[in-house]
Amino acid sequence: MTWNGFQRRFQMVRDNKLFEMFVITVIIFSSLMIGIRTYQLDPLYESILLTLDYAVTLFFLIEIMIRMAAEDRLLNFFKKGWNVFDFVIVVVSLIPMDSTEYALIARMLRLFRVMRLISFIPELRVLVTALITALPRMGYVALLMFIIFYLYAVIGNLLFSQINPNLWGDLGISLLTLFRVATFEDWTDVMYETMAVYSLSWMYYISFIFFSAFVFLNMMIGIVVDVLAEEHKKMEAEKMGLTLEEHESFEKRVQDEMQSLHTKLDQLMAMQSDKK
Amino acid sequence: MTWNGFQRRFQMVRDNKLFEMFVITVIIFSSLMIGIRTYQLDPLYESILLTLDYAVTLFFLIEIMIRMAAEDRLLNFFKKGWNVFDFVIVVVSLIPMDSTEYALIARMLRLFRVMRLISFIPELRVLVTALITALPRMGYVALLMFIIFYLYAVIGNLLFSQINPNLWGDLGISLLTLFRVATFEDWTDVMYETMAVYSLSWMYYISFIFFSAFVFLNMMIGIVVDVLAEEHKKMEAEKMGLTLEEHESFEKRVQDEMQSLHTKLDQLMAMQSDKK
Amino acid sequence: MTWNGFQRRFQMVRDNKLFEMFVITVIIFSSLMIGIRTYQLDPLYESILLTLDYAVTLFFLIEIMIRMAAEDRLLNFFKKGWNVFDFVIVVVSLIPMDSTEYALIARMLRLFRVMRLISFIPELRVLVTALITALPRMGYVALLMFIIFYLYAVIGNLLFSQINPNLWGDLGISLLTLFRVATFEDWTDVMYETMAVYSLSWMYYISFIFFSAFVFLNMMIGIVVDVLAEEHKKMEAEKMGLTLEEHESFEKRVQDEMQSLHTKLDQLMAMQSDKK
Amino acid sequence: MTWNGFQRRFQMVRDNKLFEMFVITVIIFSSLMIGIRTYQLDPLYESILLTLDYAVTLFFLIEIMIRMAAEDRLLNFFKKGWNVFDFVIVVVSLIPMDSTEYALIARMLRLFRVMRLISFIPELRVLVTALITALPRMGYVALLMFIIFYLYAVIGNLLFSQINPNLWGDLGISLLTLFRVATFEDWTDVMYETMAVYSLSWMYYISFIFFSAFVFLNMMIGIVVDVLAEEHKKMEAEKMGLTLEEHESFEKRVQDEMQSLHTKLDQLMAMQSDKK
Repeated sequence: MTWNGFQRRFQMVRDNKLFEMFVITVIIFSSLMIGIRTYQLDPLYESILLTLDYAVTLFFLIEIMIRMAAEDRLLNFFKKGWNVFDFVIVVVSLIPMDSTEYALIARMLRLFRVMRLISFIPELRVLVTALITALPRMGYVALLMFIIFYLYAVIGNLLFSQINPNLWGDLGISLLTLFRVATFEDWTDVMYETMAVYSLSWMYYISFIFFSAFVFLNMMIGIVVDVLAEEHKKMEAEKMGLTLEEHESFEKRVQDEMQSLHTKLDQLMAMQSDKK
Repeated sequence: MTWNGFQRRFQMVRDNKLFEMFVITVIIFSSLMIGIRTYQLDPLYESILLTLDYAVTLFFLIEIMIRMAAEDRLLNFFKKGWNVFDFVIVVVSLIPMDSTEYALIARMLRLFRVMRLISFIPELRVLVTALITALPRMGYVALLMFIIFYLYAVIGNLLFSQINPNLWGDLGISLLTLFRVATFEDWTDVMYETMAVYSLSWMYYISFIFFSAFVFLNMMIGIVVDVLAEEHKKMEAEKMGLTLEEHESFEKRVQDEMQSLHTKLDQLMAMQSDKK
Repeated sequence: MTWNGFQRRFQMVRDNKLFEMFVITVIIFSSLMIGIRTYQLDPLYESILLTLDYAVTLFFLIEIMIRMAAEDRLLNFFKKGWNVFDFVIVVVSLIPMDSTEYALIARMLRLFRVMRLISFIPELRVLVTALITALPRMGYVALLMFIIFYLYAVIGNLLFSQINPNLWGDLGISLLTLFRVATFEDWTDVMYETMAVYSLSWMYYISFIFFSAFVFLNMMIGIVVDVLAEEHKKMEAEKMGLTLEEHESFEKRVQDEMQSLHTKLDQLMAMQSDKK
Repeated sequence: MTWNGFQRRFQMVRDNKLFEMFVITVIIFSSLMIGIRTYQLDPLYESILLTLDYAVTLFFLIEIMIRMAAEDRLLNFFKKGWNVFDFVIVVVSLIPMDSTEYALIARMLRLFRVMRLISFIPELRVLVTALITALPRMGYVALLMFIIFYLYAVIGNLLFSQINPNLWGDLGISLLTLFRVATFEDWTDVMYETMAVYSLSWMYYISFIFFSAFVFLNMMIGIVVDVLAEEHKKMEAEKMGLTLEEHESFEKRVQDEMQSLHTKLDQLMAMQSDKK
């Protein structure tokens, strides 16, 4: 059998619905295995899980090789971002790291297999792509938010670092404390502590909460309006296309009819002139 | 009197507005009774309540039998999901379980009578149906959210299980802890504890909060846009139907008039030709 | 001077912009006075404030009498809900209750003068009217939410009343505890306590949070969509009215022109027939 | 070289993309420097930072002088709000305040240089302008919200000031406590404390949470609807303009054709009359 023959077979396997279902089942099964290993297990089950883990690694290797072989040119395979994503996850899990020192890292890397679910279920892939494309929309608002946080963090550090260095000791800790305040998590404890020294420091917190909530809300509203306006434009374009078409056909018919009226009248006039 | 005669009577009772109001009153009354029994009561009142409870059970039994008898065929009754719902609630409350051991379960089952309010008030029925139909819309986003929780739960368990087994002991507990973090409930306590060991573990929490909030917000926005686009499409279809109709009538009239112009011109031309 | 003459004068005073501004100033001033009295004050200032308070009471009495006298018939005054609102506030503040025992109630009643700001500033009046009209929209969802709370409160009382009677002792306290859980306020403390006895009780909390959040979110989305659809319909109706008008004028012109073409052709045909 | 020659050069420098990038780099660099100084530093680095700080101050001075000189008239420079903003920041940082007593204030003033990022990046400038124009939309709702807070704060002070003066001691503290309750921050602790004395005081908190949440939600929905309606109107106007134009061109063509039909018929009728 030629290479082309093999390739067609691989393509058949890859596009087979049953094979797809089986791969998803293996992904889910391997994800569950990772979850089960977080519980205290009998050594027997541990070793069974370990063996199954090797089997899953092998299966993923074969599966990705089938998909690579099914492509006419290997480069086409790597042109799709999701394929690269899959490839990296599979390759990384091949690195032998089960010695005790790297065991933690090895288990974490194996964890990313769960993310293959995203690359394998088309609906999830669409969703994640949509989420990633939604990111730049937030870019400048995020920058503005960061400037607000930065300003308040430095002020907080300057004013309160003596009061509680655990919360305001340096810029990083201050930013973390502000994030905590922004999530309303025991923010009054932070405030009451500094109010004992500077009784007006409530202004710092209230203004920060107002600014960050205000910017956040406006970002939210902005995104809703943006997305809706986009959707709306698409629909309008569609609709206008329809009515335009229909309009044009009507206009064409009216003009055709008028043209024929003209020619008839012209003929009539010619007849009259002839008689003279 | 024939069976048909009875049936018509039952239908009259069932469709009677007053009877409906009375059933709703009994449902509310029985719900209140359940609520009252959560308070410490005089034994006398307890026994009165118990007797009333039997009366309510009996009334519900009669009421559902009337509605069943009112149908031409019993099967029609069970075709409506809400009827099955009512039937199960009534039947289950008939099981004699007032011995002390099952008393708790018996009281809980009786509690579901409160839900008969939903099946009896049409507006609530519509609302609940709408909520249930809104569920699939959330399906894949919920799956994505679960994958994020799962990934972070396993990582949390791997890294922090030694620090606080009560929060990160196994996958289940870790998921619960992450849900707690997602609701911002004392999440900094959880974080500060692990930061004492891994000083960079704030990255774990902040990234988790960002991811889950980002996915959640996008889901919300997506739903709003979806529902609005649907609503919009319906309205556009309606409107376009209207304008199309109106358009067509205008176009028809114009074309009819033109047609009659043509015939007149044709007649004129025929006259001219005749004269020659 | 006749009574009519007085009435016109009162109307002039009432509709005077300056008088209006002055009333608003007095309302704000009296609101501030109420606020100032929450601070520890020098007895001298206390007595000044008390005197000013009497002056304000008197002024409000005069002001409302002017507005009542300005109406042609007294009944017209009470036809407007906001006037009744004002009247009750003024009358109530006249009741002499400055003896020590009723002092608290007296000060509270005087507090409602702050709400006269709402009845006096038209924009606030519109806002509050809008908020009140938005209430029924929430009616059935609120009822559904209450049923969920009621169900969970009784279940919580049945299961957990032994564990912590301060949180689950009876229906009322259970409802309050659930409201606390719904606001995410230290809800894990409540949960961990019951999980020590029933290790699966997290299902109770998580399901409650999901249900209440789900219903709440859907209510929110529903309201946004409702309000937008309404707004949209109004605008569409407006637009359609415009295009309809314009359409009709065009259609009319086309038909008129066609009519005149017909009459000309008819004349032409008549001429031809005459010649024969 | 004449002054005009210099001015053109300054304009060239100011509008140079490279120069702009360099200014932004310096702003970011100076912001980072402020951040770095919140950490414990080696005295050597401290002095280096201090020197760099002088350099940045000098650079900003030169940069703003270039931009001022580039304008035809100095007044034009101050006509743009953002220029005034820049000018104040630069001038203020020139005030010599590095003596130990004013060191804190000096460092805070230098902090405002971070905000020059906003005035320098056009997208951020647009964003902030948009946020500021969104403010009045919230005006009256904010006033209503404040009235609710004020009313509840005075009531809270009257009822609970004896129970916990730290939370309800005077109007200011009560307002702060209510803000805390509105953010759900340990609000049950506040409630349980007063419920120990007035067992019905939960009504105070629950009603406050409902009122403030209700007004807040309606404000949010109102803003979303407002912004969307505005957007919608703009798009409709655009669209209608398009269809109107197209309509008119069609109408014009139909009428022109009809006109020429009329003239032809008129000619025909004239011919007929001639023959008679």
